[in-house]
Amino acid sequence: MASILLKRLMSTITLKAAPSKAHHHGPLPATSFPAGFVLGGLHAGVKKKAGVPDLAVILSTSEHPTSAAGCFTRNAFKAAPVIVSDDILKRNGGYARGVVVNSGCANAVTGKQGIDDAWAMVKETDKLLPAKETSQFAHETLVMSTGVIGQNLPISKIVEGIRSSPKVLGSDFAAWERAAQAFMTTDTFPKLRSRTFTIGGIEYRMAGMDKGAGMIHPNMGPASTTFASTKQLHATLLGCIMTDAAVSPRSLQSALTYAVDRSFNSISVDGDMSTNDSIYVLANGAASNGTPVIDEETNPDAYDVFKRELTTFAADLAKLVVRDGEGATKFVTVTVKGAPSYRDAHNIASRISTSALVKTALYGEDANWGRILAATGSVPLLPSAAGAPAPVINPTKVNVTFVPSDGTKPLPVLVNGEPEQVDEVRAKEILSLEDFEVVVELGMGGDGEAQYWTCDFSYEYVRINGDYRS
Amino acid sequence: MASILLKRLMSTITLKAAPSKAHHHGPLPATSFPAGFVLGGLHAGVKKKAGVPDLAVILSTSEHPTSAAGCFTRNAFKAAPVIVSDDILKRNGGYARGVVVNSGCANAVTGKQGIDDAWAMVKETDKLLPAKETSQFAHETLVMSTGVIGQNLPISKIVEGIRSSPKVLGSDFAAWERAAQAFMTTDTFPKLRSRTFTIGGIEYRMAGMDKGAGMIHPNMGPASTTFASTKQLHATLLGCIMTDAAVSPRSLQSALTYAVDRSFNSISVDGDMSTNDSIYVLANGAASNGTPVIDEETNPDAYDVFKRELTTFAADLAKLVVRDGEGATKFVTVTVKGAPSYRDAHNIASRISTSALVKTALYGEDANWGRILAATGSVPLLPSAAGAPAPVINPTKVNVTFVPSDGTKPLPVLVNGEPEQVDEVRAKEILSLEDFEVVVELGMGGDGEAQYWTCDFSYEYVRINGDYRS
Repeated sequence: MASILLKRLMSTITLKAAPSKAHHHGPLPATSFPAGFVLGGLHAGVKKKAGVPDLAVILSTSEHPTSAAGCFTRNAFKAAPVIVSDDILKRNGGYARGVVVNSGCANAVTGKQGIDDAWAMVKETDKLLPAKETSQFAHETLVMSTGVIGQNLPISKIVEGIRSSPKVLGSDFAAWERAAQAFMTTDTFPKLRSRTFTIGGIEYRMAGMDKGAGMIHPNMGPASTTFASTKQLHATLLGCIMTDAAVSPRSLQSALTYAVDRSFNSISVDGDMSTNDSIYVLANGAASNGTPVIDEETNPDAYDVFKRELTTFAADLAKLVVRDGEGATKFVTVTVKGAPSYRDAHNIASRISTSALVKTALYGEDANWGRILAATGSVPLLPSAAGAPAPVINPTKVNVTFVPSDGTKPLPVLVNGEPEQVDEVRAKEILSLEDFEVVVELGMGGDGEAQYWTCDFSYEYVRINGDYRS
Repeated sequence: MASILLKRLMSTITLKAAPSKAHHHGPLPATSFPAGFVLGGLHAGVKKKAGVPDLAVILSTSEHPTSAAGCFTRNAFKAAPVIVSDDILKRNGGYARGVVVNSGCANAVTGKQGIDDAWAMVKETDKLLPAKETSQFAHETLVMSTGVIGQNLPISKIVEGIRSSPKVLGSDFAAWERAAQAFMTTDTFPKLRSRTFTIGGIEYRMAGMDKGAGMIHPNMGPASTTFASTKQLHATLLGCIMTDAAVSPRSLQSALTYAVDRSFNSISVDGDMSTNDSIYVLANGAASNGTPVIDEETNPDAYDVFKRELTTFAADLAKLVVRDGEGATKFVTVTVKGAPSYRDAHNIASRISTSALVKTALYGEDANWGRILAATGSVPLLPSAAGAPAPVINPTKVNVTFVPSDGTKPLPVLVNGEPEQVDEVRAKEILSLEDFEVVVELGMGGDGEAQYWTCDFSYEYVRINGDYRS
């Protein structure tokens, strides 16, 4: 059949080297990295190719206590580093000073040996932490791994790498970038961002890196959370954010959980959830200069500002993953408005962003609102209370609009449930852009609104993932 | 980037005509069609190409009352024929004698005009039903449409077609096949099956047709049912099954709901749920010969046999849709065993069958159990009772096995949570078959077991659905 012919044909095509997407990793100001962190990346030998960084070590050197929070994959097959890091965060009540990350091997589905290996990474990194009289914790390092599933780590190489890492640790731009490079697997560029923000007249910094290109549809929460039963579920995504603000452990976790739902949990490349997804945030207070610790209860105004900064920063990092999505040629923002609740809006935006028919239409630059509508209508809405009837979409209230990223006029394609006579030339103009937005207004009288970021589904995606043992 | 180059390249490739998949529509015995039905297909002019059937009319001519049941899409944007047919079934308490079907236009998102057009099809077909003194119903015809969304039906052509249909109506093989052809849209072959079965010493017949190739991931229930909040949701699929058994309306609906969940609701081509999915069953009692009506309460043994026949027959029809899936090169059975409940097993089988990473690996003939495991683990299991904690998969109890369709030895790839040293040559042998099975045993001590039928994800799928306004 035609597919077999195509398969043969595609396997004989030597693709021209893809132009780099590295322009998305723009030059970052060298002065805006948080105080009190040293970090670096090096080649430990997990990856075969010599010199390619595959191990990152991040240490807080602050005198102030360093709070830490994590959001982990909700997958039932949690990888060893997820299990071990969750354990450490719980034991310490939300304090940790070190992070160690390897790429090239996920240490997932590796049984007892995998757990031992993850602990070995933690213990070796613990030894690098500056001695601190106040530290009462047995272990202060969180661990992350990404790469192939079902293979054991080359743990002696990794331990040797951690031991030798002090010679590469630094706090300048080159050190941050090298650490970000060590996170990469199929990523085509390192993903590093930094910013400054002000709370109560004091300037703080936030910087971080993430990775991910395929198996991207995270659903993370504080570990030991169970699935929200109605949540759409489906990446290895790893991320680590550092700030020199002082935040209480409880409020750091609460802010991270909120931020992750509106950032990393709002992106999809292929709708598949990984066993390793992990996001950590470390707040070391190195710039707090004796001001009160940021806390939701005792210091709500400061907390609100911090939560907002963390959320938009996390969204910036998350969008980089979609821009680097396997085979992606488009970056599409899906906005759902007028839903009964945020959760309903999020579920619908997720379904549209995951639909193979919507994503192939985006690739084909086709303003196919019928597929968007079918995806929207396939999501069950949530009852407002247990036992209450689920709300029902009124098709005659629904609007769908394509919004170009270049500031020119939006194009309504469905108005109050009635198809518009679409100007095909204008539709093609918008859909041929690399960036645009699809807005679905449900008109249900609620203020539920959510955004999702997705990419298109291309031949290249099939090639990357259909290749034998990719 | 590479994708753009590929996109250009693909658009310039003239694909060799795909070899027909019509061998799946094998020759059917001409004598096994149910008594008391006349039907036919004709070209009414919905489709542009002259002579291509686009209108089917099916009439029960039995003297016995004809019960009817339906399962409809749970999509919020239900097409006009779904709304109208549901209304008629409800008004009549489960009786209907006619079915009218058009392909080429879905009559979906067509507002008030769409509803009027669906009623016009019903009323015109009602006129063809043999006069019956006992008939107390205003309308006795169910309607189905499939094709492009957002366009109005060429209703005068359709009404003219229905008027002229008596000259093509018949009860021989040619009439059944012509009706099945009129269901087709992107289908590459008509989908018609028939069988005989015996209850209480009396031989009955069951025959039916369906259609579908893309936007296939149905989730249908008796209309006015709401979503089960934890059900994975995501075709146009149309089907119509006729039998000459006598079944009470209540039990016909109950048997159909059970059968649809284990057949049409257990297939996926692309994970997208349509606005038009509808399956009808008509039982006209023409062969019942005065025996008691089959009913779940008054006649449970007979009911159980009927339900089992309907379920396996519906599964036969459903599998034909997967075999004709857009771009499909593989037919893969996904079996999940040892789950706490049927619903858990069904949800996991659905998620595996929908995963883009699993489906591209199937296309690539790659025994990538890591992707299967990640998909399995991404599904939230259901609490056994409201408020009870959700069950948790124990990774060390999980087995994954590839089972070839040629009767040769199965290949375990994960045993008790530990990866096997996979014989790559043997894996390639199995995965290069057109048919094979993936068995996931959760080992949770439950007897929850479900099967799903899916296909792979190919370049051809992207080509078909990425083409401008496909």
